Amino acid sequence: MSHKIVLEEISKNKIYGGQQMRFRHESKTLNCEMTFSIFIPEKGENEVVPVLYWLSGLTCTDENFVLKSGFQKYANQRGIAVVCPDTSPRGENVPDDHDSSYDLGLGAGFYLNATQKPWIKNYHMYDYVSDELPSLVNKNFKINGKKMSISGHSMGGHGALCIALRNYSSYKSASAFSPIASTISCPWGVKALSNYLGGSAKDNFYEWAKYDVVELIKQSDLSIQNSFPIMIDQGNADNFLDEQLKTKLLIDVAKKEKFPLKIRFQEGYDHSYFFIASFIEDHINFHAKYLNC
Amino acid sequence: MSHKIVLEEISKNKIYGGQQMRFRHESKTLNCEMTFSIFIPEKGENEVVPVLYWLSGLTCTDENFVLKSGFQKYANQRGIAVVCPDTSPRGENVPDDHDSSYDLGLGAGFYLNATQKPWIKNYHMYDYVSDELPSLVNKNFKINGKKMSISGHSMGGHGALCIALRNYSSYKSASAFSPIASTISCPWGVKALSNYLGGSAKDNFYEWAKYDVVELIKQSDLSIQNSFPIMIDQGNADNFLDEQLKTKLLIDVAKKEKFPLKIRFQEGYDHSYFFIASFIEDHINFHAKYLNC
Repeated sequence: MSHKIVLEEISKNKIYGGQQMRFRHESKTLNCEMTFSIFIPEKGENEVVPVLYWLSGLTCTDENFVLKSGFQKYANQRGIAVVCPDTSPRGENVPDDHDSSYDLGLGAGFYLNATQKPWIKNYHMYDYVSDELPSLVNKNFKINGKKMSISGHSMGGHGALCIALRNYSSYKSASAFSPIASTISCPWGVKALSNYLGGSAKDNFYEWAKYDVVELIKQSDLSIQNSFPIMIDQGNADNFLDEQLKTKLLIDVAKKEKFPLKIRFQEGYDHSYFFIASFIEDHINFHAKYLNC
Repeated sequence: MSHKIVLEEISKNKIYGGQQMRFRHESKTLNCEMTFSIFIPEKGENEVVPVLYWLSGLTCTDENFVLKSGFQKYANQRGIAVVCPDTSPRGENVPDDHDSSYDLGLGAGFYLNATQKPWIKNYHMYDYVSDELPSLVNKNFKINGKKMSISGHSMGGHGALCIALRNYSSYKSASAFSPIASTISCPWGVKALSNYLGGSAKDNFYEWAKYDVVELIKQSDLSIQNSFPIMIDQGNADNFLDEQLKTKLLIDVAKKEKFPLKIRFQEGYDHSYFFIASFIEDHINFHAKYLNC
């Protein structure tokens, strides 16, 4: 496989028959150097394969899912490439939160396009994940960019669902573990949106609603409601369930809008990667069905 | 499950139907506070289950295998508890290497009983893993201490094989990923043994040979040669293979002594946890066969 000059290989390890790799590149969208991980299944050595994007949660990088979920076994079985971006822009010149809190700034990009200073120069994770990174990946790897799905955890579950709902013709399916279902309605979300987008849910509703899963489902039209497959797993021993994730709002809006979300509550599971590892096989198989592989 | 007062629970997470836990306790053998991880399969909620000990390699703690290998799926399927000790004594009062090198001192206990200052007070990982920890675990959990197997990686592969070969009536089986096959013959081993045990392979051979897999196989008697199952996986793209692991010496001695080791070379795999994750299912199933579960 030839990688264009724009990509610098950081590491490459064989796992479950496929190749787990990491690359560095200059991002025009984010105005900084970025790192992402990509898994190419054995089948992908000789064939063009479909691709799943995975978005991680607060405090994570591209590596958490790669090291802790065990997804490679199932992705290799089904012949799916998996791309994991970082969770925010990075680097010395990228602004961080003054208090270095974990839920704003570095590691907390919230997969949106910031409109406010000092974030506006770098914090465009929405465009990076939905546009720049897929273009880069499609150019440099044997990947069928028309067969693309997306998944994620917590803040990344929010990101995956928002990006899929706003670009559903580009994705075959979406799934999430423990997603932040309504940024407008929880402390993590309100802190992020008021800083990155400015204002409040009242006086800046149009901007805020672009990054709120519940609002996007309210706004969704019949064609996505009838055609777009979404699966969500949620542990019922998750410490963040009531205050931050607001899963109930998602269930209610899906019912009201007749949006056929598949939401599974998993008894005794928490918010950690131990939960993700336990059910990632189901998610890979869910996406494989719609990626037709 | 009731835990005696000696154990302080640090964390508990559900994974693949079982419970992954971490505990802290005062170790008499090591003269310091120690942390270990233990996985109890779903079956172990109501029944006494067999147990596998896992020993990690240089720089690791009890957590690497827990977070990165994905063993819990297979251990839960077969109903095996898995105990992961730390790789050395720890704490402010435990001596470390002056140069803070990764291959001596903290994180590099080599699963031996040190006889030299300053190590002698704390560095007794051999006794800790083969005696104190199993006693503690058997007393505090629903575990059948008579059904015990042992495995490990790199320095931990060395530890697992040495402990099993010297106590084979206590273990049903042993396995290793990328073990240091001959501490006497490699830089990592010579550095560790000369510091912890003193002298050299020439003038302190009796002590050094206790912690050298090749020498222990040379010294093994017919009863272990005929009865004790050992399986080893080794990646042939492992950077440490020739200089540090000395797998060829192990193959040669096993042939000469007619010791029926099962050694598998795995094409393209390196020394990382990506390799372990790829083949841990085989190791769990190997041990399950001899643990009769």
